[in-house]
Amino acid sequence: MASNKIPDVVIRRMVTYLRILREIPPGSKEYISSSEMGEWAAVNSAQVRKDLALFGEFGKQGVGYPVQALTEELVRILRADRDIPVAVFGIGELGTALVRYLTGRRRSDPKYPFVISALFDSDPAKIGTNVEGLTIELLESWSEDKNRKEVKIALITVPAGAAQEVADRAYRLGIKGFLNFAPTKLRLPPDARVLNADVTHQLQELAYYL
Amino acid sequence: MASNKIPDVVIRRMVTYLRILREIPPGSKEYISSSEMGEWAAVNSAQVRKDLALFGEFGKQGVGYPVQALTEELVRILRADRDIPVAVFGIGELGTALVRYLTGRRRSDPKYPFVISALFDSDPAKIGTNVEGLTIELLESWSEDKNRKEVKIALITVPAGAAQEVADRAYRLGIKGFLNFAPTKLRLPPDARVLNADVTHQLQELAYYL
Repeated sequence: MASNKIPDVVIRRMVTYLRILREIPPGSKEYISSSEMGEWAAVNSAQVRKDLALFGEFGKQGVGYPVQALTEELVRILRADRDIPVAVFGIGELGTALVRYLTGRRRSDPKYPFVISALFDSDPAKIGTNVEGLTIELLESWSEDKNRKEVKIALITVPAGAAQEVADRAYRLGIKGFLNFAPTKLRLPPDARVLNADVTHQLQELAYYL
Repeated sequence: MASNKIPDVVIRRMVTYLRILREIPPGSKEYISSSEMGEWAAVNSAQVRKDLALFGEFGKQGVGYPVQALTEELVRILRADRDIPVAVFGIGELGTALVRYLTGRRRSDPKYPFVISALFDSDPAKIGTNVEGLTIELLESWSEDKNRKEVKIALITVPAGAAQEVADRAYRLGIKGFLNFAPTKLRLPPDARVLNADVTHQLQELAYYL
């Protein structure tokens, strides 16, 4: 189980470190230094060493971190060494694009952990139609069957006005992870994790600096 | 001009505060308290007061913040009181969905600051075709004409292998703000701001906790 003592910013950097390791062409180098990792991640080398030391002793003095072993450790630490079922709520243009993208990632890499396992919409014209082999269902039809209860993450791609109600319902059905693409702030109990994926929010963060 | 002394996390919270204010139905309430803002933003009321105090004296003791005036102040502080031209690099499924979404937002709200102003792709079959009234162009064709030099933000929606090259080119053309949807880490000079909008990155952050 994940420890709650690790700050969120460290987890975010760990995801970045894993990405950096995965971009090293296989077989091209055996070790990577903390300064090289830091350069790519835009943090200093001491930060890299400190972050990784929270989870164990992975490096060798003067040699660096073994690329393959550290990659496997990070996958394990970030709990990406399992299938993680994802449901998409709102199969409009963005929802459809995300379903296609994520099923494509999974098809081309069987170790890609995120598996789209359910699609929901409220438009009667869409119910029963297919995207990438998955049938769009009415949220209300989500039953108690085993398959559904396994969903770990909800992608919320409904319009802003519907997002809170959809998220509340998904939460009651046991989902605790939310990636919110709707331009609205979701209010969920403290044991839910919500990440904001709304493009307007991110554009506004950038605009301040430009 | 934006001050560089304000921490990025404060700016991110300011964007959240603005969102909260905008979700208050017009005319429904004149003042909002720091504790109510904090509840919605998932921070404590002291944090709200501290953040806003960095920019001025907006509240009234015992009354709260005036909703309309504070909204206008936040728009000004976040520099969203102007048109901000955005170019999209990579007009595949995700790029198209984003163009449609953002032009729709702008159409329904003339004060929405982000204006899609150029579309680029490398696929000869797409060059010259239209999305939402905008013609898809070859990146190489980006000339020195005035219109193009005004672009402030690049949405990078090309495949991972092409993202760095496209971002380098956009940077050389004067773009300093990047919203990166490609599953790769971009390396740009320190005066560029890059936000990570890749869905896999965000899913991996969530997976740790679930």
